[in-house]
Amino acid sequence: MKIGAYQGNPEFGLVEKNVRQAVTELEGADADLVVMPELFNTGYQFVSKEEAFGLAEEMPYGDTCRSMMEIARSKKMHLVFGMAERDGARLFNSAAVVGPEGFIGRYRKSHLFYEEKYFFDPGDTGFMVFDIGIARLGVMICFDWWFPEAARSLALSGADIICHPANLVLYGCHKAMITRSLENGVFSITANRTGSEARGGKEPLVFTGESQIVDNRGSLLASMNRDGAGIVVVDIDVKRARDKSITTLNDRFKDRRPDLYGEITKSNLPA
Amino acid sequence: MKIGAYQGNPEFGLVEKNVRQAVTELEGADADLVVMPELFNTGYQFVSKEEAFGLAEEMPYGDTCRSMMEIARSKKMHLVFGMAERDGARLFNSAAVVGPEGFIGRYRKSHLFYEEKYFFDPGDTGFMVFDIGIARLGVMICFDWWFPEAARSLALSGADIICHPANLVLYGCHKAMITRSLENGVFSITANRTGSEARGGKEPLVFTGESQIVDNRGSLLASMNRDGAGIVVVDIDVKRARDKSITTLNDRFKDRRPDLYGEITKSNLPA
Repeated sequence: MKIGAYQGNPEFGLVEKNVRQAVTELEGADADLVVMPELFNTGYQFVSKEEAFGLAEEMPYGDTCRSMMEIARSKKMHLVFGMAERDGARLFNSAAVVGPEGFIGRYRKSHLFYEEKYFFDPGDTGFMVFDIGIARLGVMICFDWWFPEAARSLALSGADIICHPANLVLYGCHKAMITRSLENGVFSITANRTGSEARGGKEPLVFTGESQIVDNRGSLLASMNRDGAGIVVVDIDVKRARDKSITTLNDRFKDRRPDLYGEITKSNLPA
Repeated sequence: MKIGAYQGNPEFGLVEKNVRQAVTELEGADADLVVMPELFNTGYQFVSKEEAFGLAEEMPYGDTCRSMMEIARSKKMHLVFGMAERDGARLFNSAAVVGPEGFIGRYRKSHLFYEEKYFFDPGDTGFMVFDIGIARLGVMICFDWWFPEAARSLALSGADIICHPANLVLYGCHKAMITRSLENGVFSITANRTGSEARGGKEPLVFTGESQIVDNRGSLLASMNRDGAGIVVVDIDVKRARDKSITTLNDRFKDRRPDLYGEITKSNLPA
């Protein structure tokens, strides 16, 4: 199975341009699954809730979702991408999962970072795993990495690959995702953006790039440059993520001691 | 507060020699707290349960504990050290916490690695936090690092410093402990051993050294060499571990979403 990460530098607010650029890159990609950054179509640094609401779209009926479903169909690939999702009066920092057959599902960011709290509602989906046939995809967004419960919930719910759209400005995530893959025995794809934004007199944000793909034993399979653009793809044997053994006598899941520290609730697989 | 890690290469089965060597090093140390490796007095690779039982001691009445309490009293320091603990017919891979006033408590390893399962009973203490006045110490042993619930439980129970005696043979731990400190906002001291053991025709074990101390923001404060011996000490402001903020709007604990992934039970502070 060929899995990839898209890295780019979207121009704030120019949704059509940003989506077109992504679609052009995806046209040239040879992959079964590509993960895109968080808010890949709009850019990150909203200055008001109204602005965020104005740039948000419905899922799956907005233009961005339609364009991504179209390229997923024509390329017969699966895509996970971050975007601002409007649902009635509510606004979420979401990720969509789409495939050749259309819309598969959404995840709404659980742990909002910094001023996202001014613009977005806290996610209400929990940590979702989507079975796309060739693999089971778990989705978490950016700052979710800080909380070990996020990746743990996804792994315990059966995720083979953690799809991780990001707009990282803090350090520590790249290293942490290696640990997340190792401790849970899952592949992880962190698709990060590059460039910087300084909007409305706000503190400039510098995004850290270095999108990476990690295997189920914590080895870095691919890593982009800090300012690189494009799609990196690696070929994996995704079934390896179903083997949770560490040694012949140790298992990542069976060795857990919920009797001592309580249980992390499993998310529900969608029907 | 001065915190340290002891690293050495014990000779298998020569308890008196290994303890004497440690005491000699501790005599020369200027520290409020020193963490010693797992099974620092006996060595690691037992070949039978009988052998492990024969080298195990009662806690706190065995010779090793007495020697460590004696040096803790004379140096006015706290020590956390790993040893095989005999309790009736049961045998645990344990760590003791002692101070100038004597024995403070014990932790029994929760996640047993590989053939330890042949020799030791699974720990029954849960993840304990010991308030020594100048700091609250959480204790976990070696392979516990693999399970994020371990450090999480300790942090949620109020640990400022995770004391982590280890005999590491796998890779990944050093990096993971940086993530454990960062995600939980705690200091961590991983005291690892060096050298190798190949006993009773068993597969040789090579221990990885590089004992390290990490601060509450995931910065490496000190790291020993792979084959280094002695005690490394750093001066920290331990109160920083009580500040769980990430940004002015984010907090490691308050931002958690147990509504989405269940709760990790807090261990109980000892009475």
